[in-house]
Amino acid sequence: MSLWFSEKYADGVAFSIKAEKQLASVQSRFQKIDVYETKDLGRILVIDDYLMLTEKDEFIYHEMIVHVPMAVHPKAENILVIGAGDGGVVRELTRYDYVKKIDLVEIDEMVIKICKEFFPEISCRFDDNRVNIHIQDGLEYVKHLNNQYDLIIVDSTDPIGPGESLFTEEFYRNCRNALKDDGIMINQHESPFYKVDVIGMQNAHKKIYRIFEISEVYQAHIPTYASGHWLFGFASKKYHPVKDLDAGRWNSLGIKTMYYNTNLHIGAFALPNYVTELLREAERDN
Amino acid sequence: MSLWFSEKYADGVAFSIKAEKQLASVQSRFQKIDVYETKDLGRILVIDDYLMLTEKDEFIYHEMIVHVPMAVHPKAENILVIGAGDGGVVRELTRYDYVKKIDLVEIDEMVIKICKEFFPEISCRFDDNRVNIHIQDGLEYVKHLNNQYDLIIVDSTDPIGPGESLFTEEFYRNCRNALKDDGIMINQHESPFYKVDVIGMQNAHKKIYRIFEISEVYQAHIPTYASGHWLFGFASKKYHPVKDLDAGRWNSLGIKTMYYNTNLHIGAFALPNYVTELLREAERDN
Repeated sequence: MSLWFSEKYADGVAFSIKAEKQLASVQSRFQKIDVYETKDLGRILVIDDYLMLTEKDEFIYHEMIVHVPMAVHPKAENILVIGAGDGGVVRELTRYDYVKKIDLVEIDEMVIKICKEFFPEISCRFDDNRVNIHIQDGLEYVKHLNNQYDLIIVDSTDPIGPGESLFTEEFYRNCRNALKDDGIMINQHESPFYKVDVIGMQNAHKKIYRIFEISEVYQAHIPTYASGHWLFGFASKKYHPVKDLDAGRWNSLGIKTMYYNTNLHIGAFALPNYVTELLREAERDN
Repeated sequence: MSLWFSEKYADGVAFSIKAEKQLASVQSRFQKIDVYETKDLGRILVIDDYLMLTEKDEFIYHEMIVHVPMAVHPKAENILVIGAGDGGVVRELTRYDYVKKIDLVEIDEMVIKICKEFFPEISCRFDDNRVNIHIQDGLEYVKHLNNQYDLIIVDSTDPIGPGESLFTEEFYRNCRNALKDDGIMINQHESPFYKVDVIGMQNAHKKIYRIFEISEVYQAHIPTYASGHWLFGFASKKYHPVKDLDAGRWNSLGIKTMYYNTNLHIGAFALPNYVTELLREAERDN
């Protein structure tokens, strides 16, 4: 008997991974969390039957959501991370010596617990003394903050389930308030190919574009996410993600990466025409 | 009862597409050719149980294999296309008024026949009077050519089955001879993620790197190919794919594309570190 995890990208499109065994299956207050051991992709984390990460390609997502803004902002010291209970974002952020404080806001304590147990190479830096873990709803956490953070990273799940509030205009507006005048907000921005992801992407972009002075989108090749073509939003009051990239400064830090580099940074913002058209469509919808 | 087409990316990883109906199934002298109608991806072409193209995303592959070299070479007039029996490469090439001759060498006449019948929007330019169709083995065709083409596009299937000879050193060497002094060869170059594709990629790169003065690799987001992260090889005796890009010239042609643009052209050559490392590994293997 074999055990296959399968995720539908559309009604008639599925991506399936054979599991050698199930390592954990927990129903938390918020969601169902499963961990499987697989041969081809290492351990995988599944929440409410959606693939969250695989050990084999998680580095791509985590490097791209962290190093892109860190190479633009001249000195991001105070950072808010929303979601990201697996620890991957924190792991990448703690590689910067000049970071002073990382507030991590995760709604579901169980995600952290499970990842600490089963994904030690991802959750390895929760004990860094700059990290403060807040078990709380992200929408609530940012409600009354002002002028506090250099960088906010919104590492949400898809815009259904507990992650839904992280795709609202209210949330983005509060994030803008929580940022300093030269602050940057990064969010996972869904994907331009399958219909359900396009809706999520356009919906997020429409709102962020309305609220931030600068609102650009960048892409990465993430093989185990739907279509493999994943997007991130870069929103800011001041910095442009390409014109204000300081490649020399970033490269002088000597941070070793497996996906990110400063040439790829520029290329990541060079979107295909059809993606740009979908974003323009969302902007016109305002 | 439902009909699912499924392709294994690895032993324990599969990508599946639900077919509404099977439109054709033919065993040619060389291979099995199937056409299915699907809801999410339009019609799909399957050869020997490998997905060759879908109507929904074929434009990405065809634009990227054609417009990248056409934007670098100042005036590619004589072009050889090997494989490509679906007609997608020819469709893109015939959009250039200055192209004088396109020799298409396809080993399997049945592919052309099937695509003319079931993929009219891809095979639509076979009747352009600059196109000469040669039903022949690509390896044989290039054997005794010299200094004849400005551009050779190798649109092969995977390096198994009838496409195998298009991944040999002999073939690449003959292509080099068939090119003029400033000629360019483009080939589909497999993918950097799943093991079987990595082997194909490194194997092709090792040989091309040995033979051509300039040998670079570029990437595209092709959602329905394994990992969605697909690569192409750019090999040349003279032109560098980025330094010699003439964006002004290409943009002045006014060719409308859905994926390609000249900014993306540059970004496509900005590879992730892990891909660059796999290529360097292949180069050292020489």
